[in-house]
Amino acid sequence: MDPATMTAVVDPHIRAALAEDLNAGDVSTDAVAPAPRRARVDVVCKQDGTIAGTDVFARVFSLVDAATATRFAVADGDAVRAGDVIGTVKGDARVLLSCERVALNYLQRMSGIATYTRRMVRALEGSGVTLVDTRKTTPTLRVFEKAATRAGGARNHRFNLSDAVMLKDNHIAAAGGIAPAVRAVRARAPFTSRIEVECETLDQVREAMAAHVDIVMLDNMGEADLHRAVAAIAGRAAVEVSGNVTLANVARYARLPIDYLSSGALTHSAGILDLSMKHLVIEE
Amino acid sequence: MDPATMTAVVDPHIRAALAEDLNAGDVSTDAVAPAPRRARVDVVCKQDGTIAGTDVFARVFSLVDAATATRFAVADGDAVRAGDVIGTVKGDARVLLSCERVALNYLQRMSGIATYTRRMVRALEGSGVTLVDTRKTTPTLRVFEKAATRAGGARNHRFNLSDAVMLKDNHIAAAGGIAPAVRAVRARAPFTSRIEVECETLDQVREAMAAHVDIVMLDNMGEADLHRAVAAIAGRAAVEVSGNVTLANVARYARLPIDYLSSGALTHSAGILDLSMKHLVIEE
Amino acid sequence: MDPATMTAVVDPHIRAALAEDLNAGDVSTDAVAPAPRRARVDVVCKQDGTIAGTDVFARVFSLVDAATATRFAVADGDAVRAGDVIGTVKGDARVLLSCERVALNYLQRMSGIATYTRRMVRALEGSGVTLVDTRKTTPTLRVFEKAATRAGGARNHRFNLSDAVMLKDNHIAAAGGIAPAVRAVRARAPFTSRIEVECETLDQVREAMAAHVDIVMLDNMGEADLHRAVAAIAGRAAVEVSGNVTLANVARYARLPIDYLSSGALTHSAGILDLSMKHLVIEE
Amino acid sequence: MDPATMTAVVDPHIRAALAEDLNAGDVSTDAVAPAPRRARVDVVCKQDGTIAGTDVFARVFSLVDAATATRFAVADGDAVRAGDVIGTVKGDARVLLSCERVALNYLQRMSGIATYTRRMVRALEGSGVTLVDTRKTTPTLRVFEKAATRAGGARNHRFNLSDAVMLKDNHIAAAGGIAPAVRAVRARAPFTSRIEVECETLDQVREAMAAHVDIVMLDNMGEADLHRAVAAIAGRAAVEVSGNVTLANVARYARLPIDYLSSGALTHSAGILDLSMKHLVIEE
Amino acid sequence: MDPATMTAVVDPHIRAALAEDLNAGDVSTDAVAPAPRRARVDVVCKQDGTIAGTDVFARVFSLVDAATATRFAVADGDAVRAGDVIGTVKGDARVLLSCERVALNYLQRMSGIATYTRRMVRALEGSGVTLVDTRKTTPTLRVFEKAATRAGGARNHRFNLSDAVMLKDNHIAAAGGIAPAVRAVRARAPFTSRIEVECETLDQVREAMAAHVDIVMLDNMGEADLHRAVAAIAGRAAVEVSGNVTLANVARYARLPIDYLSSGALTHSAGILDLSMKHLVIEE
Amino acid sequence: MDPATMTAVVDPHIRAALAEDLNAGDVSTDAVAPAPRRARVDVVCKQDGTIAGTDVFARVFSLVDAATATRFAVADGDAVRAGDVIGTVKGDARVLLSCERVALNYLQRMSGIATYTRRMVRALEGSGVTLVDTRKTTPTLRVFEKAATRAGGARNHRFNLSDAVMLKDNHIAAAGGIAPAVRAVRARAPFTSRIEVECETLDQVREAMAAHVDIVMLDNMGEADLHRAVAAIAGRAAVEVSGNVTLANVARYARLPIDYLSSGALTHSAGILDLSMKHLVIEE
Repeated sequence: MDPATMTAVVDPHIRAALAEDLNAGDVSTDAVAPAPRRARVDVVCKQDGTIAGTDVFARVFSLVDAATATRFAVADGDAVRAGDVIGTVKGDARVLLSCERVALNYLQRMSGIATYTRRMVRALEGSGVTLVDTRKTTPTLRVFEKAATRAGGARNHRFNLSDAVMLKDNHIAAAGGIAPAVRAVRARAPFTSRIEVECETLDQVREAMAAHVDIVMLDNMGEADLHRAVAAIAGRAAVEVSGNVTLANVARYARLPIDYLSSGALTHSAGILDLSMKHLVIEE
Repeated sequence: MDPATMTAVVDPHIRAALAEDLNAGDVSTDAVAPAPRRARVDVVCKQDGTIAGTDVFARVFSLVDAATATRFAVADGDAVRAGDVIGTVKGDARVLLSCERVALNYLQRMSGIATYTRRMVRALEGSGVTLVDTRKTTPTLRVFEKAATRAGGARNHRFNLSDAVMLKDNHIAAAGGIAPAVRAVRARAPFTSRIEVECETLDQVREAMAAHVDIVMLDNMGEADLHRAVAAIAGRAAVEVSGNVTLANVARYARLPIDYLSSGALTHSAGILDLSMKHLVIEE
Repeated sequence: MDPATMTAVVDPHIRAALAEDLNAGDVSTDAVAPAPRRARVDVVCKQDGTIAGTDVFARVFSLVDAATATRFAVADGDAVRAGDVIGTVKGDARVLLSCERVALNYLQRMSGIATYTRRMVRALEGSGVTLVDTRKTTPTLRVFEKAATRAGGARNHRFNLSDAVMLKDNHIAAAGGIAPAVRAVRARAPFTSRIEVECETLDQVREAMAAHVDIVMLDNMGEADLHRAVAAIAGRAAVEVSGNVTLANVARYARLPIDYLSSGALTHSAGILDLSMKHLVIEE
Repeated sequence: MDPATMTAVVDPHIRAALAEDLNAGDVSTDAVAPAPRRARVDVVCKQDGTIAGTDVFARVFSLVDAATATRFAVADGDAVRAGDVIGTVKGDARVLLSCERVALNYLQRMSGIATYTRRMVRALEGSGVTLVDTRKTTPTLRVFEKAATRAGGARNHRFNLSDAVMLKDNHIAAAGGIAPAVRAVRARAPFTSRIEVECETLDQVREAMAAHVDIVMLDNMGEADLHRAVAAIAGRAAVEVSGNVTLANVARYARLPIDYLSSGALTHSAGILDLSMKHLVIEE
Repeated sequence: MDPATMTAVVDPHIRAALAEDLNAGDVSTDAVAPAPRRARVDVVCKQDGTIAGTDVFARVFSLVDAATATRFAVADGDAVRAGDVIGTVKGDARVLLSCERVALNYLQRMSGIATYTRRMVRALEGSGVTLVDTRKTTPTLRVFEKAATRAGGARNHRFNLSDAVMLKDNHIAAAGGIAPAVRAVRARAPFTSRIEVECETLDQVREAMAAHVDIVMLDNMGEADLHRAVAAIAGRAAVEVSGNVTLANVARYARLPIDYLSSGALTHSAGILDLSMKHLVIEE
Repeated sequence: MDPATMTAVVDPHIRAALAEDLNAGDVSTDAVAPAPRRARVDVVCKQDGTIAGTDVFARVFSLVDAATATRFAVADGDAVRAGDVIGTVKGDARVLLSCERVALNYLQRMSGIATYTRRMVRALEGSGVTLVDTRKTTPTLRVFEKAATRAGGARNHRFNLSDAVMLKDNHIAAAGGIAPAVRAVRARAPFTSRIEVECETLDQVREAMAAHVDIVMLDNMGEADLHRAVAAIAGRAAVEVSGNVTLANVARYARLPIDYLSSGALTHSAGILDLSMKHLVIEE
């Protein structure tokens, strides 16, 4: 992540995570390492996958002690293999011990997302369909999880409710239809915002096209309808497809004449990539 | 969760999550619902599972508008089925629309964990083995995720580095052995802290028992060694087993003469339970 | 502002503003009003203008004491005149006295921006040119100041660095040209982000059009070049003009064949609208 | 500002301002400058004025990356001229790009206030009247804005509701008169607090003097009454005059036999001084 | 405390205190009171003294659950006696149990300070000497502790480094003498700030008087010198005496011709007043 | 304290304490030391006692300016004597002046607690009774105050409501007895939590033993009953005694056959150890 986002967004999250885990002090570490001693420890990969979050992992340690040196042999987005020693952390043994779990919790989660994303991206290779993420992220971790989907090769969908217009079923119900909803948005949203409408039927697609939206999202639509919808859109709007897209079923979407495929599973159901810190050695 | 924890720990997290998603305002909702109007919307279950986080879900809405009324037909820990309408939210349409995603992100994640936990607890039923969670939680969400494992029927392991002593491989390396590590801890940790030691070999188990620890954690140990370890411990300490325990392999642990089985997967790889808010109706 | 943004973004700002002014307590109020007494006070307008921020003003009081009732005879965006009593606040005298300055500081600033904006919008009436704001806002007050420009009749430009791509002179220098800059952005930014490029010369405009950008921003360009630029763009991108646009010079832009006119002055140099709280009466 | 205030008060504000603008990352910079590269950029003055906030400007960059070096050829309070290159920032191009707007937003606002203040101070030169600011500052920016008025040559009035007593019309109404209000304050406020009373009539001035206040503030009083008031005070209290004092009318106050002239316009209506960052060059 | 200070300053402190104690939940209360039940509990006084902090005590409960009703039979500053039931809290048993310790920790500390202060105030009765507190308060609790000294009958000294000038030995050393220090302050501090100088010798007193300071603080001066200092000041400045003033030695200061006597012991060494919550009864 | 706790828990507290005292700037220091100059100052001990908090004291200065060097001739837990120069702070004079009071407020309080604790520990020497602290700490300062009791030679009791179960009179009342309370806790609390029950009568002790609790706390029990209670417990649980234990009465507990003696006075009534910063010298 860029340095300003690191300072403004990542650091406060790391501080909160450390406070959550440290609470009133690390009683185990305080006892076994009461004084500073130089040590080193390896970061070991225990599953094949794609790494992400190396900068966040390193930041946990450097925020606590700027003298901690973290070196990775891999960069975000790289493939890693079970058994690889992919990095080393050198610094005060107390820091290595106390921050281990928090640093790994970020790294494992982000790498799990990158790994899952990469697999889906591969399944779409050559198809012309771009994989994108969603707002179905863990509360307060969106910036981490969207960085991880990028590392895995996906593109980001909007970050939040301010940066693009997405009119979903409940918005349309509240507005009394797609046309009034789009009209309201055009009068009020930032002029830089693209307008996307979620459509569940062909009629909705036609209504959206009549309203000149920028992106049509086809939600849980059957394949036949989906082809008809794409024909109706006829290139005048980008086409996004959504609806329980997982690694298990992604292949079926590769054949469709669509632009974007969005998957909440990337961030909400990827699971982690198993990584650990091993072989701590006191160096002095 | 108890009301004081709700105020002190949950509310600030929800505020941060809302700030993350609202950012500079919900441009879609502002356009389609510029003024307050009473509405209602259903909470619909789209997969079978175990629910958790209903209080957190409701709190998202009531924190934004105390006049929002959330009613659930189920309680945390209850089974839910795909298709069930499990609850209703009534209030200002703007609040229902703007908070939907944040509220669901908590509820889906917590319910996903409860669902996965419940399945593992069932697999251990009658075995005398108690399932427990770990500190492998999402940074800043531990209180939510540990509430979800409880809802699923597991017991909690320690919450953080202050509330129990756990001496792992790297601590033992830093201290120069189990005996000096335990000695150091006994001199310094709160007298209320139990002392647990992670052992990978039978020799370590014997060293730990000689140091009179309270809990022995057998980490990634083969079944034969595991039986020998339990024999060596002979009831003088509680026995916890750990190491990549998942729903796929939990059954094999049900036969073991152990007290606790800990699984990081409960919180780091459960995935979500699919839930959504549907059928928004403007009531006035 | 919508209720969720009020809770997530506005409330913490108000709390900080109150802490800034209250500090260790309001020694004047504590002395003259040591106990709760019901009182009322008028909100008086001392200049002609456009009001904005009535919800924020009311929120300052209700955050401190939910029993405070603020009633306005006008809504955001309405015209107000010097001498008008535009609202009343009823509640504990201590609350009215202690919160007066903070509440007015928000209201005056937001109304000053709305007033200035409204005047510029009027000067552009019938021209087909839409007035938009910028990111030249007071640090941490963007959500307030962008709400005020909306109340004055302008459209918002992007809220922050995440929600649209704007490639300015320094970005282009860093990327080594417009073409590589746009290429890089297309590969990495959220697919929902529009791409805008700032152009100072006709060559840059042509380079931008070759790169198929969504919006061209013509910065400080002379009128002749500006017409040539618009001709070169030929409707294939939206045209924004910028550069020290103020109420004093806005009229000259009304004649131009452009889509958007952005003005930093709206938020950084509007000055306030003079408002005060007068005629406090103890009611019991 | 002094280093401790910088740490305790300024840094958190800068972090919040960066979070407001960075939000989920700087998508433009991330694309054009994905990796660290050394660069430099000039700070250019586009209007004549008085500079203020150079330390805050520099702090924005150093907070994000301690390796950023900001050098100014001018100090706070110095005159600057349109066209001057008044400083240079050297560091990682990503940091220069991402922090540009936030850093300028502080610098422009503080310099605008200093510029306006300096002009008013000049108009009072030789008059014996000291210009002072007010609490009509932007919510949460008081420490910045009061530093800027000092840089422009004014003295500060009280910082907040705790550090001096100011009894205004509404306080007097609540207390039932000046005498009881002063009596209450003397019994309760810190003994270090000066007591100031706002007077709109000669009778009030006499009542205030009878109560032995430290400072009398003559609010919106006509010139004849003002002379009578000063005669009644007769040097036994300091005299402050207030009421819509701006650069346009300040000269008329220079002739008055008063001690302090307070102007809310200094902080609420000064507008900015136009400054920009130009000529970014990649150095490696 | 006034309602705005309660919201802006007290509430965030209480939230932090609750988070400190609740951490990951109240495991004892969660077990014994898993569901809401109405209960009541008494606040019992176990020592004679002066009560302070009743509003803070009540706020702890109401912040967690607005439905909690706290009634006190005494007001801040009142005498209480061992054995008295001075108040009752009614509400959800879970809230009463979880918040008990935090609420009592505030109340006991504030009442301890008020008790100690009241005793010192009594020892000075009739002497013309006013007891004042200092900045020797517990970090982050100044607003509570200064409210407690007021409740005990003392006046407050300045709240912080911004609201009055106090030139102490180290400031004078840095400035190169009292005269240059006062000169510097007069040119720069808010015009509302009183100037106080700490003097350890008669020469310093004379230097301070020559500089026309507002308050002279005689620090750890012998009685003879003290009389000489007061003579030299001759009513032209207020006289404050300081230096390890405690209940044990306060009587000796009652005879001195001084205005203010400041005592750090009020806030740093008062100890608590023993109070507890007893007789919890489930009401339903 | 360990470095991670320093970053996560101590730093935010110091920042809040600095903000409390600095507020809108240190007007005295700003005047006498407007520019950076190297200086040094001594830390002087004015009473005999035990030092604690040297790391926190140093951190206040280094947080504000990393170039400040604090050296102590003593370590936490060491004896110090009146008149000793125990440390030196070197750095920017502005930093030394502005941070002096905040840094001393931590150091004095922590050293006061360590001093008092050490005296009680000495009184128990050779008795086999271990002195422990309580949760009767200053709100938000528990981590500091529990570090201080450790420095004085005591052991810590639990840190908060999450890390051990303590069933007190009100919990037992809510649960309807000790047996149901313990049963509820065993089903729900983390399996690592020890269970302690507060007993005021012999019957309660027997009920607690029947429930197999880990620790029995005998509260305010007479000596005869206390011996009977210990006999009834017979080594099957640890025995803690509590109830207004102070330095004045601690000796009487040394004779008892108990394991732990807890004293709230350690943290709530110890008073400070008098320390100051003296002899500031400008070095350049």
